[in-house]
Amino acid sequence: MGKYFTVTCFGESHGKCVGVVVDGCPPGLDLSDADVQRELDKRKPVSSAISTPRREEDRVELLSGIFNGHTTGAPICMLVWNRAVDSKPYEEMRWTPRPGHADYPARIRYQGFNDYRGGGRFSGRLTAAYVMAGAVAKRVLNKKGIEVLAHVTQIGPIKSLKTPSVNEIRLNVYANPMRCATRDVAQLMEKAVRAARDEGDSVGGVVEGMILNVPPGIGQPVFGALDADLAQALFNIPAVKGVEFGTGFEAAGLKGSQNNDAYTIKTGQVSTTTNNAGGILGGLSTGMPIIFRVAFKPTPSIAKPQRTVNLKEGINMEIEVKGRHDACIVPRAVPVVESMAAITLADHLLAVGFR
Amino acid sequence: MGKYFTVTCFGESHGKCVGVVVDGCPPGLDLSDADVQRELDKRKPVSSAISTPRREEDRVELLSGIFNGHTTGAPICMLVWNRAVDSKPYEEMRWTPRPGHADYPARIRYQGFNDYRGGGRFSGRLTAAYVMAGAVAKRVLNKKGIEVLAHVTQIGPIKSLKTPSVNEIRLNVYANPMRCATRDVAQLMEKAVRAARDEGDSVGGVVEGMILNVPPGIGQPVFGALDADLAQALFNIPAVKGVEFGTGFEAAGLKGSQNNDAYTIKTGQVSTTTNNAGGILGGLSTGMPIIFRVAFKPTPSIAKPQRTVNLKEGINMEIEVKGRHDACIVPRAVPVVESMAAITLADHLLAVGFR
Amino acid sequence: MGKYFTVTCFGESHGKCVGVVVDGCPPGLDLSDADVQRELDKRKPVSSAISTPRREEDRVELLSGIFNGHTTGAPICMLVWNRAVDSKPYEEMRWTPRPGHADYPARIRYQGFNDYRGGGRFSGRLTAAYVMAGAVAKRVLNKKGIEVLAHVTQIGPIKSLKTPSVNEIRLNVYANPMRCATRDVAQLMEKAVRAARDEGDSVGGVVEGMILNVPPGIGQPVFGALDADLAQALFNIPAVKGVEFGTGFEAAGLKGSQNNDAYTIKTGQVSTTTNNAGGILGGLSTGMPIIFRVAFKPTPSIAKPQRTVNLKEGINMEIEVKGRHDACIVPRAVPVVESMAAITLADHLLAVGFR
Amino acid sequence: MGKYFTVTCFGESHGKCVGVVVDGCPPGLDLSDADVQRELDKRKPVSSAISTPRREEDRVELLSGIFNGHTTGAPICMLVWNRAVDSKPYEEMRWTPRPGHADYPARIRYQGFNDYRGGGRFSGRLTAAYVMAGAVAKRVLNKKGIEVLAHVTQIGPIKSLKTPSVNEIRLNVYANPMRCATRDVAQLMEKAVRAARDEGDSVGGVVEGMILNVPPGIGQPVFGALDADLAQALFNIPAVKGVEFGTGFEAAGLKGSQNNDAYTIKTGQVSTTTNNAGGILGGLSTGMPIIFRVAFKPTPSIAKPQRTVNLKEGINMEIEVKGRHDACIVPRAVPVVESMAAITLADHLLAVGFR
Repeated sequence: MGKYFTVTCFGESHGKCVGVVVDGCPPGLDLSDADVQRELDKRKPVSSAISTPRREEDRVELLSGIFNGHTTGAPICMLVWNRAVDSKPYEEMRWTPRPGHADYPARIRYQGFNDYRGGGRFSGRLTAAYVMAGAVAKRVLNKKGIEVLAHVTQIGPIKSLKTPSVNEIRLNVYANPMRCATRDVAQLMEKAVRAARDEGDSVGGVVEGMILNVPPGIGQPVFGALDADLAQALFNIPAVKGVEFGTGFEAAGLKGSQNNDAYTIKTGQVSTTTNNAGGILGGLSTGMPIIFRVAFKPTPSIAKPQRTVNLKEGINMEIEVKGRHDACIVPRAVPVVESMAAITLADHLLAVGFR
Repeated sequence: MGKYFTVTCFGESHGKCVGVVVDGCPPGLDLSDADVQRELDKRKPVSSAISTPRREEDRVELLSGIFNGHTTGAPICMLVWNRAVDSKPYEEMRWTPRPGHADYPARIRYQGFNDYRGGGRFSGRLTAAYVMAGAVAKRVLNKKGIEVLAHVTQIGPIKSLKTPSVNEIRLNVYANPMRCATRDVAQLMEKAVRAARDEGDSVGGVVEGMILNVPPGIGQPVFGALDADLAQALFNIPAVKGVEFGTGFEAAGLKGSQNNDAYTIKTGQVSTTTNNAGGILGGLSTGMPIIFRVAFKPTPSIAKPQRTVNLKEGINMEIEVKGRHDACIVPRAVPVVESMAAITLADHLLAVGFR
Repeated sequence: MGKYFTVTCFGESHGKCVGVVVDGCPPGLDLSDADVQRELDKRKPVSSAISTPRREEDRVELLSGIFNGHTTGAPICMLVWNRAVDSKPYEEMRWTPRPGHADYPARIRYQGFNDYRGGGRFSGRLTAAYVMAGAVAKRVLNKKGIEVLAHVTQIGPIKSLKTPSVNEIRLNVYANPMRCATRDVAQLMEKAVRAARDEGDSVGGVVEGMILNVPPGIGQPVFGALDADLAQALFNIPAVKGVEFGTGFEAAGLKGSQNNDAYTIKTGQVSTTTNNAGGILGGLSTGMPIIFRVAFKPTPSIAKPQRTVNLKEGINMEIEVKGRHDACIVPRAVPVVESMAAITLADHLLAVGFR
Repeated sequence: MGKYFTVTCFGESHGKCVGVVVDGCPPGLDLSDADVQRELDKRKPVSSAISTPRREEDRVELLSGIFNGHTTGAPICMLVWNRAVDSKPYEEMRWTPRPGHADYPARIRYQGFNDYRGGGRFSGRLTAAYVMAGAVAKRVLNKKGIEVLAHVTQIGPIKSLKTPSVNEIRLNVYANPMRCATRDVAQLMEKAVRAARDEGDSVGGVVEGMILNVPPGIGQPVFGALDADLAQALFNIPAVKGVEFGTGFEAAGLKGSQNNDAYTIKTGQVSTTTNNAGGILGGLSTGMPIIFRVAFKPTPSIAKPQRTVNLKEGINMEIEVKGRHDACIVPRAVPVVESMAAITLADHLLAVGFR
């Protein structure tokens, strides 16, 4: 992933570790294990209501590319070691693909050689690698005053109707387990998750991301569009089924006169009076905040029995996915969305020669 | 664009030509000028209601990579020459960015050196290059029995509520100017476009795409996801603001038990009883039809006066975008959506060694 | 070719044209058809002694990426049209691969679909595309004061023993048909070519290239080494069989104390007292001139009868390659070597953010 | 490095580890730690005469991409941990670049932030990563019956004049510390190294590589030439100053009639009676053995005093590079040459759809 700021992930859910190599990071940026750990911690499950009782206390280890507390310009390898985990339940399901998971196509893609334990490389656990890389990308962005934020706007049927201020997002998101910028909505969301969990079911949701202080003119037309690359990055997050910018799908129903953003100039500074474009026109940043929304499907691992097939015996059957899983992964996806956005933007900044 | 089936576009709206080089096409495929022309013709404006009176009669010219009616394995360069066009109106707007267009960020990105005439490289005219490349990609796919379809499901406020059959799509889409699979809905859509045009305004819409007969296991997890690459390709089409697969944004409100697709086996053939996933799980094709929707914003060029700025004089002002423009570009985007999907899939097929 | 300054070639020897798309060129550089033509003209055969009587008067046509005499930042497509040529002789040789040419492996690689006329894509004519792209790259370099030179140091058995000065190279190379910096050696070389031609044979040679005023620190260790990328570019020139930097193969016989270049500082300027490294250490430029030599094999097309096989009938046979061909292509390779060096360096300059 | 079989290295000489991620390896290949260790062991110093007394006993650790003894198709991360090393000597030389090393350009490239201890990322120690990746590449090649060999043909002034048979190479190379296929020459070489060492000096040499059983038609014309990519890979090995294929630089002095390889057919099998081309024509493999030679400069670290500069104080001075270093690294480069050739070929095999 990436052309100038490149990210290579490795590792599996139940293998030795999950890691990432970031190449192309400029030299001279402050970066410590603690900086990366802080980002990783945002991904920790925080509420017993919504997430797996498995303790995932990931400690990042930086293996290369750092010297005397600064990036050196060399590839940065970072990883978290996996703890001993029980892979037995997966043995039983080896021939019975779980609905909504990649078990079946993965089996075909890798001719049966893929590490199927815990979803292997398709596990949400791999997003720890995205977050480690994102921590480095954020350092690149911070140097230019660019800030990446994300917050949950919908969990199952509960939608946050009012638009929170940037400050509300900054203050509230990591202060509640739902990563929602509006506290009372967060409580409703948590209730919805709890209800799903109690039914042995799961819920999805929507995360809104924003990138502040991006200078105008970042991106490229005709392959290399900033929105195209952001969308690609976001769809590489497991469970993402939709991405939209600015007014997004709603724009399809608007008129040009409603959707166009009028320009205005004030003390030499050009801006638009609205931001329906979500900060991107023709694949280039406009200088306004970049705004996008990402739709997550409900977690496919549910306790309810589901119909599937036994591939070995070639028969239809029922499956109950064992173990405890997150009834909703959307809140934990918030730092992942931030990270993928940060990585993409860092790549585009370096593309235009920002150092 | 692409890694194995690579596409490089060149040309500008009011320059000499719009062209494309396709590299990585396997040798031995039948391909003639007529094959590419047929696809290009799908992009032609067909209704005086919806599109520009500019006559765009593009004749493709194949410059390389073809010998004795077959692809040779060498890069295929194709182009359409531009006709003499009047670029004067653009001269006047050089310092006054049109709302909703990329004029302003492009000016900054290219330090004022970009060819601004007719939108230059940001013009929808560049999509002719996508369609030429798509014609080659479709040849690659056809050899494997893979078919790419697209149809308009929404224009402004008019949504097509029923799901057309594959045959209705095949038969009807290119038989009406709105590229809608349901004829009576097409008429309502045309009316909506006419109304917008008469007001000096424009409308957007939604195109649904589908790819049939994709074998399971195409794609890649963790960077290289098939949906991620499709989304990236689609967002590189001008005016796209949203992309979703299967249940898409609606999935955010569903429960896992509703959204998961149950597997079933019949005479050794595995399939799912529903296709909420839109044919992709974990970045890999499932073997079910790949289904996605693409949201287009309303054409930014409208006759109504709009507020903008004069960048030279640093003042606010009003602009009326002259010339006649499409009041709705969505129907013309249908073959473009098909093409971008075909290019992406051809790339992924070659990635797994399909020849 | 290239990552930041990317070059895509298309066309065949006897097809419609030979062309190239250069992407990633910064906006705002002066560039006209004449600038590119000047470089192309360096590649013209100048002596009846050494080259084909076929008249190759290539006129370049710039199709995109230029506006008002400047690069726009958009892809630059350039081509030369092929004249009507007689492809019949190649029809006869379709099943009888010419020794030293790529006919045989090309046939296998492309399953017989490759355009074999005139060598198709393997023809030296394709280097016209390299030179067009090189003309753009030189513009990028000139802006930074970087100069690329090349000259012939050996033709067959004739080696130029004395090292010419930079000024001699600048003045003499394009003033004699052998592209040799030393005039009397040039005459001996021409005699050697004439002798080979009269025997129906051919000769090879060596071209030395140099790049002046490269700032130190350009390149990358561990994949992306400047010498590695230069070598790759140079080996993509047909007929190249060896590349060396600085003392090159001779270094294998030297001691460390002889081959190391001592550093010295003078008015704050660091340099080395010798340049055995050829201006590159650890994949990075040192600030000294980059010096390399490129070995060309003798032209494989010779009038003498040669043993080959008839692939259709599966028998051994003799072939006489018809038509008149260059008895030595080395002088015509000089601008090609310059171009490939310039393209590689432009790519590396952009990689470190030079604009 | 690589497009289909991609290799990403990380780590520094005196950092925590040296590692590599290999992506694109097909699933289902047998691969164990022992397989990689066997290759790594070939790189171990074996003679007190030629190499550093530092004990480098590298144990490889495979972190991902392997399951039940097979590759899974997921990225394979492998590393060797560095032992505690004394970095103090490098502290002293921080401002005094060692002649022949990359210290000076690295300092500029990375603005002083590079990890300079032990040469950091420019150290020969990084080639352990190449060898680990090469072990995987060899597995890919073995499946197709392709074998990669290398042997030392020159050390300082001692050249091996006779051409050893393939069997001699297989048997003798790893049976003597000079990695020479001819035993008595090996003894002369060892003497030459000893002599250099005793003078506080060093010697270079030449490694010849060969790749057997490559099918014809592997590679690509016009960017992507097999020889070009092999050369690029080989020049990414530290200390390489020249690469040639087949007759190489000697070809420059030959006539076409001498250098062309005649084709012959026998029981339907096409081959050439000579192999002056070194197995590659027009960037494609011919089916004959691929033969190349790689020139290594003498190790720059020598005990003799050398002139350099103090960059902090801006003065000329003398330096004596402390510690014990290899008086000749050429024998240890043999498995590295094999590895880089194997990686390049694996990449090209996958490019044409070999699985």
